[in-house]
Amino acid sequence: MDSVLAVDLGGTKIYAALVGRDGKIINEDISPTMAARGFAAVADRILAGVDRVMPADERPAGIAIAVPAFIEPQTGKVIYSPNLKWRNVDIKNRIEDALGLPVWLENDANLAALGEHRCGAGRNYDDLVYITVSTGVGGGLILGGKLYGGAFGGAGEFGHMTVDADGPACSCENRGCLEGLASGCAISRDARRLAESGKGRGILSLAGSMEGIDARVVGQAAADGDAEAGEVLAQAGRYLGIAIANVANLLNPGIFIIGGGVACGVGGFILDSAREEAYRRTYPPYRSFLKIVPAALGPRSGILGAAAYAWEQIEALQNGGK
Amino acid sequence: MDSVLAVDLGGTKIYAALVGRDGKIINEDISPTMAARGFAAVADRILAGVDRVMPADERPAGIAIAVPAFIEPQTGKVIYSPNLKWRNVDIKNRIEDALGLPVWLENDANLAALGEHRCGAGRNYDDLVYITVSTGVGGGLILGGKLYGGAFGGAGEFGHMTVDADGPACSCENRGCLEGLASGCAISRDARRLAESGKGRGILSLAGSMEGIDARVVGQAAADGDAEAGEVLAQAGRYLGIAIANVANLLNPGIFIIGGGVACGVGGFILDSAREEAYRRTYPPYRSFLKIVPAALGPRSGILGAAAYAWEQIEALQNGGK
Repeated sequence: MDSVLAVDLGGTKIYAALVGRDGKIINEDISPTMAARGFAAVADRILAGVDRVMPADERPAGIAIAVPAFIEPQTGKVIYSPNLKWRNVDIKNRIEDALGLPVWLENDANLAALGEHRCGAGRNYDDLVYITVSTGVGGGLILGGKLYGGAFGGAGEFGHMTVDADGPACSCENRGCLEGLASGCAISRDARRLAESGKGRGILSLAGSMEGIDARVVGQAAADGDAEAGEVLAQAGRYLGIAIANVANLLNPGIFIIGGGVACGVGGFILDSAREEAYRRTYPPYRSFLKIVPAALGPRSGILGAAAYAWEQIEALQNGGK
Repeated sequence: MDSVLAVDLGGTKIYAALVGRDGKIINEDISPTMAARGFAAVADRILAGVDRVMPADERPAGIAIAVPAFIEPQTGKVIYSPNLKWRNVDIKNRIEDALGLPVWLENDANLAALGEHRCGAGRNYDDLVYITVSTGVGGGLILGGKLYGGAFGGAGEFGHMTVDADGPACSCENRGCLEGLASGCAISRDARRLAESGKGRGILSLAGSMEGIDARVVGQAAADGDAEAGEVLAQAGRYLGIAIANVANLLNPGIFIIGGGVACGVGGFILDSAREEAYRRTYPPYRSFLKIVPAALGPRSGILGAAAYAWEQIEALQNGGK
């Protein structure tokens, strides 16, 4: 069997692909998730996407699905997904029953980390930390050449790292979380506050309305030279830099890879200020090790990681492993 | 060969021991470090301590030294030790030349983590996080059953994790470090400030003088029922809890083991408040995994970890490893 199926299930899009043994995408399909319609409808949409990339002449060896969720490693059950509003959902069995193929689930950011490790910016690193900044903040760890899930499969949860003890309240019940200070949502909130206070006119005029202000608009305004927009992004970058320094001290990784549309899509403002702050806050003897780069695979980190994961699992099966 | 030498080199004490293959201490010796006399004098004092535990009838297989330092893994050179005021010092060669035995150096908190993993509170855990709170704050990681040093050997540096973006300035040039908020030094500082402001009379009267106020006195006052002393410790514990929650989210370890005289020696005030705060700040689906226990080996975590490390290295040598 020369191909596997890979799905990157997002809060808004389902990305399905057929991927060869060489890691090349043979066929791909993008469709809306429509998460609001609930679990069964989303499962059907995944199956429809998979059907559109399915080869006519052979059976793929299996399917790996990247899910924005905490997944129980033993059962592959989705324990908790704030994005999809799922709790204790058995998507694995649903897809397995429908396709008759082995199905593996993993957290989406973990698989993006694996994708960057196998065919992206982390190819030459055994120990890497991947952080994604988009609407929210997530991440994954490759330690000693392997995806590291910790004792319970949930390692790499960067978004809810406290970086400011008395910072803003977060949806997770904590306060001062990285996600509440450096995500796309945080950037939109900060820019709107600026506009509401009568400042941030450049941002507001570009957005057209208060509701139109989002991280992309702030990025565009900053790229156009708007200093207030630049400062909103730099502030988010500084908090990201604190988290990076904390992890540099804790794990001494070979490289930090930053993905996600918000961190990488806005002209380097966030990444530049994150680098500066991380350097300042890293334990002095470790500063020379600090390497922070953008993801190389862009929106394909997750799908290519899912494919790599599927091949890994197939190999393990063939070698009689679990 | 049935024994190894182990040394736990501290800022104030040198603890030397002869340890059997079963991990039992055969002979031990404690002497002052006298770090102020400089590198050569400390090396001589280590050799004198080792000499006092050396067996008469056989040659130990090697010696492992736990050093409060960042050590370059390839060379065993001490790159940086704030406690000993050493930079780029080759203690490994010095001891090797004097004893004619293989010498291995490792960070002291890493070896304490290994000690707890092998014969302490972490015996049944493949993934554990050890944090020590004494004068300073340090730690070590056992991931997948092995001591994890990261790409550069310095992993486990908890003390300089930012837990409060705008917190007090730290000696490491950062601000809001855990060490500046939860260490013995931080507790002394906070208690003195209290006394200087005219409060904290219970603490001051127990200490006898402003200079006499230290973490132990604060612990004693709290144990005697002094509410202000209890609050100083609880505050330190809350910051420790933030760091624990951050690492719980990031690594999902099976257990957190807290060592060090300050965290464990003051009637549970710090540990109780750390547990409560960590629980509150941990990502909700991970809260049920949270397990925080005191170290089981007390002041022997480091020396027993050093012995275990020496046996590990000897085995690797015998198996033709590095």
